Amino acid sequence: MGFTAVESLAEQIAAHLADRIIQGDLHSGERIQEARVVSELSVSRGSVREALLLLESRHLIDILPRRGAVVATLTESGVRSLYDVYVTLLSRLAQKVAERWSDESLPSLLAQVHVIQGLAEQRQPNAFIEAGFGLMKVAFTVADNPYFTQLLSDLQPAIHRTYALALRHSVGETSHATQFFTELMNAVIQRDCAAIPAVVERYGQHQCELVLTALAEPSALHV
Amino acid sequence: MGFTAVESLAEQIAAHLADRIIQGDLHSGERIQEARVVSELSVSRGSVREALLLLESRHLIDILPRRGAVVATLTESGVRSLYDVYVTLLSRLAQKVAERWSDESLPSLLAQVHVIQGLAEQRQPNAFIEAGFGLMKVAFTVADNPYFTQLLSDLQPAIHRTYALALRHSVGETSHATQFFTELMNAVIQRDCAAIPAVVERYGQHQCELVLTALAEPSALHV
Repeated sequence: MGFTAVESLAEQIAAHLADRIIQGDLHSGERIQEARVVSELSVSRGSVREALLLLESRHLIDILPRRGAVVATLTESGVRSLYDVYVTLLSRLAQKVAERWSDESLPSLLAQVHVIQGLAEQRQPNAFIEAGFGLMKVAFTVADNPYFTQLLSDLQPAIHRTYALALRHSVGETSHATQFFTELMNAVIQRDCAAIPAVVERYGQHQCELVLTALAEPSALHV
Repeated sequence: MGFTAVESLAEQIAAHLADRIIQGDLHSGERIQEARVVSELSVSRGSVREALLLLESRHLIDILPRRGAVVATLTESGVRSLYDVYVTLLSRLAQKVAERWSDESLPSLLAQVHVIQGLAEQRQPNAFIEAGFGLMKVAFTVADNPYFTQLLSDLQPAIHRTYALALRHSVGETSHATQFFTELMNAVIQRDCAAIPAVVERYGQHQCELVLTALAEPSALHV
């Protein structure tokens, strides 16, 4: 079938375009012309189409009738909606981890929290965000639920995009975020499932407000 | 770009294949041969590929290296994982509806519950399941969160598949399900957000057990 080869090329194209959207290189509402991507990357039209479908499923672009693919526009209600569903899934994921961690899996969770703590004061927002998602990845293996893995992985690029925007505007934020990870990890270690939703919700709310503040700044007009 | 035309053909192919999987016509692990679908439906290979990607994102098939597309296998842990994420999202959706319904939107919610109640005793499992999803669709417009809409819409075919299996085995189940919808609706009308998670979880648990019982029956070997 050659399906895998095609899919993995599409994944590479999707990752390239996702990165340009996340870094703010491609702006809300900007058209992504299929033909241009084809010629810029010397790839087939079919793989570009598949890449665009992947980006659509990851909430980074919209595919509009007659206009084709455009970068998804960040709006206040869109960002609030995104964080609402993200917090909902993340809380439940953390609860699963709290229920299921073992002496075998705990060290990799702790190691990843350690990486986050090490990056807190370093003002490398991208590395910091990646480390946070790294913790989520370890959590996926502990929770062992492929649906949470897929749904949260699909939301991750859109969260990455908004959070990168927030960190470009709020440089000191990483130490606040680190407190959250530490607090969440403590609840997980104590298997305190009841405490988790409030911890995640409080932080999600905070992160969402940061994004909205960044969005409202004049320099963010072209985000 | 012709994108939409292609996508809507892919959607039609996906809907056709989804229906065959949901009705138990195509079984767990059965290969879906791209070339065969191309010739049976007289459509292009490209649209079949897009349809298969859609079915993968809806959890009905897996696309495996070297084997191509196969119908997703229903396993106990897979079903439990599916219901876990479904209950999590559905609870939150119901809470949003409880917060947001208005005098304008309430009648359409009540009308849909009425449709469900009317079907409870009629032993038309498919119509009953469709009516339940119809209520979810009304809930989407009230909750007004495109992420919940997309994630739950993507989970819906897999839930439909497992629930259809359960209803083929537990004919009297629809009246129990109707009690759940009535109870949930009462909590929504009273804007009793705190009561909702337990109601949804109890029912999700029950539905999940029905599916697992059906799966364990010898006649379900080829599901």
